[in-house]
Amino acid sequence: MSTIMLTDGQIIEGESAEGLKVIRHTCSHVLAEAVKRLYPNAKLAIGPAIDDGFYYDFDVDAPFSREDLDALEAEMKKIIKEGNKLERFELPREEAIKFMEERNEPYKVELIRDLPEDAVISFYSQGEGFTDLCAGPHLSSTKAIKAFKLISSSMAYWRGDSNKARLQRIYGTAYTNKEDLNAHMARLEDIKMRDHNRLGREMELFTTVDVIGQGLPLIMPKGTKMIQKLQRWIEDLEDREWGYVRTRTPYMAKSNLYKLSDHWFHYKDGMFVLNDDLMSEEEALEDQKLYSDPNFAMKNAQEHVYTDDKGREVMALRPMTCPFQYFVYKAKQHSYRDLPYRMGETSTLFRNEDSGEMHGLTRVRQFTISEGHLICTPEQIADEFKNCVKLAKYCLTTLGLEDEVTYRMSKWDPNDPGKYMGTAADWDIVQDKMREILNDIGLDYTEADGEAAFYGPKLDIQAKNVYGKEDTMITIQLDMFLAERYDMYYIDENGDKKRPYIIHRTSMGCYERTLAWLIEHYAGKFPTWMCAEQVRVLPISDKFESYAEKVRAELNAAGIDVTVDNRSEKIGYKIREARMDKLPYMLIVGEQEEAAGLVSVRSRFEGNEGQKSLEEFKTQILKEIATKEIRVELPEDQKKR
Amino acid sequence: MSTIMLTDGQIIEGESAEGLKVIRHTCSHVLAEAVKRLYPNAKLAIGPAIDDGFYYDFDVDAPFSREDLDALEAEMKKIIKEGNKLERFELPREEAIKFMEERNEPYKVELIRDLPEDAVISFYSQGEGFTDLCAGPHLSSTKAIKAFKLISSSMAYWRGDSNKARLQRIYGTAYTNKEDLNAHMARLEDIKMRDHNRLGREMELFTTVDVIGQGLPLIMPKGTKMIQKLQRWIEDLEDREWGYVRTRTPYMAKSNLYKLSDHWFHYKDGMFVLNDDLMSEEEALEDQKLYSDPNFAMKNAQEHVYTDDKGREVMALRPMTCPFQYFVYKAKQHSYRDLPYRMGETSTLFRNEDSGEMHGLTRVRQFTISEGHLICTPEQIADEFKNCVKLAKYCLTTLGLEDEVTYRMSKWDPNDPGKYMGTAADWDIVQDKMREILNDIGLDYTEADGEAAFYGPKLDIQAKNVYGKEDTMITIQLDMFLAERYDMYYIDENGDKKRPYIIHRTSMGCYERTLAWLIEHYAGKFPTWMCAEQVRVLPISDKFESYAEKVRAELNAAGIDVTVDNRSEKIGYKIREARMDKLPYMLIVGEQEEAAGLVSVRSRFEGNEGQKSLEEFKTQILKEIATKEIRVELPEDQKKR
Repeated sequence: MSTIMLTDGQIIEGESAEGLKVIRHTCSHVLAEAVKRLYPNAKLAIGPAIDDGFYYDFDVDAPFSREDLDALEAEMKKIIKEGNKLERFELPREEAIKFMEERNEPYKVELIRDLPEDAVISFYSQGEGFTDLCAGPHLSSTKAIKAFKLISSSMAYWRGDSNKARLQRIYGTAYTNKEDLNAHMARLEDIKMRDHNRLGREMELFTTVDVIGQGLPLIMPKGTKMIQKLQRWIEDLEDREWGYVRTRTPYMAKSNLYKLSDHWFHYKDGMFVLNDDLMSEEEALEDQKLYSDPNFAMKNAQEHVYTDDKGREVMALRPMTCPFQYFVYKAKQHSYRDLPYRMGETSTLFRNEDSGEMHGLTRVRQFTISEGHLICTPEQIADEFKNCVKLAKYCLTTLGLEDEVTYRMSKWDPNDPGKYMGTAADWDIVQDKMREILNDIGLDYTEADGEAAFYGPKLDIQAKNVYGKEDTMITIQLDMFLAERYDMYYIDENGDKKRPYIIHRTSMGCYERTLAWLIEHYAGKFPTWMCAEQVRVLPISDKFESYAEKVRAELNAAGIDVTVDNRSEKIGYKIREARMDKLPYMLIVGEQEEAAGLVSVRSRFEGNEGQKSLEEFKTQILKEIATKEIRVELPEDQKKR
Repeated sequence: MSTIMLTDGQIIEGESAEGLKVIRHTCSHVLAEAVKRLYPNAKLAIGPAIDDGFYYDFDVDAPFSREDLDALEAEMKKIIKEGNKLERFELPREEAIKFMEERNEPYKVELIRDLPEDAVISFYSQGEGFTDLCAGPHLSSTKAIKAFKLISSSMAYWRGDSNKARLQRIYGTAYTNKEDLNAHMARLEDIKMRDHNRLGREMELFTTVDVIGQGLPLIMPKGTKMIQKLQRWIEDLEDREWGYVRTRTPYMAKSNLYKLSDHWFHYKDGMFVLNDDLMSEEEALEDQKLYSDPNFAMKNAQEHVYTDDKGREVMALRPMTCPFQYFVYKAKQHSYRDLPYRMGETSTLFRNEDSGEMHGLTRVRQFTISEGHLICTPEQIADEFKNCVKLAKYCLTTLGLEDEVTYRMSKWDPNDPGKYMGTAADWDIVQDKMREILNDIGLDYTEADGEAAFYGPKLDIQAKNVYGKEDTMITIQLDMFLAERYDMYYIDENGDKKRPYIIHRTSMGCYERTLAWLIEHYAGKFPTWMCAEQVRVLPISDKFESYAEKVRAELNAAGIDVTVDNRSEKIGYKIREARMDKLPYMLIVGEQEEAAGLVSVRSRFEGNEGQKSLEEFKTQILKEIATKEIRVELPEDQKKR
């Protein structure tokens, strides 16, 4: 523990949140002074402390390279060594403006002009060379900065507005001691190493191509194999163990379908539309009115022909599967005995994301989801919803992600009822129902207003990426409105038509996004069952190629994903490369192994597992794959050599 | 054998092609007379003999129902019984027109007016009541029609032009005897029963929905299960046995990608385009020129931004996978040692078919194909191409369709070189290469000019649907042009960059279309391995439900698709329904079976296969599934009761 002194003589704890903030804020001033020394024409914008560090924005001629940052760090060390005292002073408004005008700092002038009339305008000087407009507080001397680092640089707009000047932002951080700084840098390095958008490319799981477009990743062979395994697992799990039937419905439809579902009116901007008829606002409102009466909606949808100015049908790529599966349900009449009718689909969806939003595999314009809809009688809702939660938790546990998620009940916004179907009374009923179900299973969840779908409340299972950004991984939704819109019914015990409830749900979410989470969670060291390459056979020399091939063929025939590295490289080189590829198992084969039908097993988990018969190894790995075991990886120094 | 007499006294064989044509043509006149008797205001259009029958087009107020056709048949029988003599006479042009004007037959007047000046204008009368403009020849008497049938009615445009009058066409046929007519009707019935567009819906394999759109079938749960089995089989076959890697590439891209591949310029009308920039013809030609120089094409594709009038990117849904897989290849550098690089994808494609073209599962706007591209050195082409043919034949044999296909080598059109890449000399080389390969493997094939892809010749494996319409099921293509366009290369033994050859191919074609062929080939009685429901357990009464469930659970756990019919219906009813559902196996379980752990097996193949232990049945069916056996179905009277 250490203490620091502020310009007003106050002494506080350096490691406290307040202490770190002061240190970092002062460090940003030191950075600004260094920039002014090395780039005298640079103009200063703003430089606050932030979580874990600070930044400062500069108007300079060119972006900062890593070499530039290194030179700035050296200059900052000089300034710190000089140990200049920081001092606070105030100026009246006009003098303050004149002060910054003389120093040719237009952004500072703009900041002062924007301050309220009665604001106290304070400055901090550090020695002769540098003074900044600032509310403080600050360290009493630059010398008190004991450990800092400039981390990166990137472009930023003045005041975050893309119509305003382009600035260069430098990120840095500072601590009271070198150990804390090093720990922080190690954390940053670990995050960078896990970042799926870097590691996923490096491991050749996916790539992107300019000529194809943003948000449209190409899943490379290894990523495809992983998704294939996840997909087959989920499909069989749902169909064989949870009573789902499976559908394959088209990826596009006439606008009529989306008008019927209200998506056209709530969500058109997020959809890819083909041959748009581009209605005027009045026409669109008139059109929406036609669909708002459930007695006419279906008739409208069946009869209206919407075309663009060339007579081509207005169509759109689907952003969801709901209405497609409803029509599978509607293709035949159902009795109460057929319910619940659980439909699953490995469903590809399209969303027209803004270009600024797109990121790696987590925010894309096309993705595939383990989607499904359960058509239930009102009495079945509670059990079916509980089973959906149970299935989702089972998926999370099997993937090893169960500790990384939080549960959120997403409710409507009672202050904005126009965004939703139904009445406040309807929402009270359905939200109470969901709360009762969640409490019944003892789920630990939060509640959030305004996060519901327009047709019902959701249980959202949230996960954070390596940078702390939260997204929805799995969602389970309760819907008492859409069955009427689509004229869906079942025949009850008395032969009467009744409206079913609908549960919209996914079991493990989108394959692309889940792959991203898996990459970050395991830092690419996946459990064996989901690996694209589970085993690599390494013959010690060319002489053992045919035995290596025999081993490969036998494991391959058993459904194991296995390759042979028969390049004429040294065995040590092959082993290093297999380790870098994060493979679960290497089988090293030479004279001894061939003679006795053995393999020398090296695993990522325990290191050298010794010689085993091929049969024994096959039995072991098949069990590990079948049970989806997540083997623990020992620390390097505990692995067997 | 029978003979018939023509109006000129000539006697010919009734069963000959010419004889049947005369009988049918005369029958169409008899139909026209019947229509004029029952619908005096009907106007006559044309009524020729066609393959297997005849038709006649009428301008009437409403379509003909089946009841109308029955009434017309009765009237025709009367006319035939009357035995009116047919007589030929000629009229000069103006008198002929006047003759038909008096009878108020505007279509006949138009036909006469369109005849050449010097044409002989002949008529055939049959007794007092009816005379038609006709070139003949005809039977000498209506009495000579011994067996006829009206088959169906549908709308047809006058002269096949959708801008002209809507007519009602009646199809019929006639033979010299009842036996031949009955055999023909049985054939028609068989075709109708096999027609996938009817049977596939009846069996709940797929459906279509007006509100979603034409050519966008929804694959229902049973069809989805079948496609899932086909897909997993093909993916594992390609990857585990034929050395393919698998990709998942996006379904849309910027127009840049398709400009690079030339598809935009050759095929844009067949694509679904989003946010079209709608270039003028000159702009489009200018644009095409930018891409025709391979040295600039890639740079153009990377740098040009195409947007519509709202600034949105011009994009399109993909009609093929080629360039997407090329970019997977290009994502890393390849040495000659990595080749052949075989990429497979279960790939969804989109083609903007005309609404008149769409049909069931065979002509649709979205489909999924077992697509793939092999990147080879020139030396590898022959072996790889042969293996592609071998794989395709293996798929056909496994599906039981090997005898239903023909092979066609599709060549360029030397009279229209502008439609293709490369020169005549290039095409000679690559077509000779393909011919050599096909002859080498002793394939029995035809050659067809003008059927090649614009980038190379194809081996097309053609199959006919139940109505005799031919389509391409599988295609394997040789391409020496596109690698340059996409700047694809490999590093050869000397470290130099070389252009690879590309094989474009599918192993078993589109899943939707193959499903259609399977439905028609097997009339819905599929081999066990591909059935959505392989086994149904039928408890004799409620008492045996728990044993039935035990049987289901055990078979389900072994990966068999099995259900239980536990409705409280009579066992005879359940058996009849299972038979109608064309199931391979029913397991009937009652007291005896439960006591001894048995099942009573009834199969579609041999009927009552007797009691077996559950274990024995499981072993038997698992082997049948694993080997993809096509069990022969005995004729009904040879099945065991």
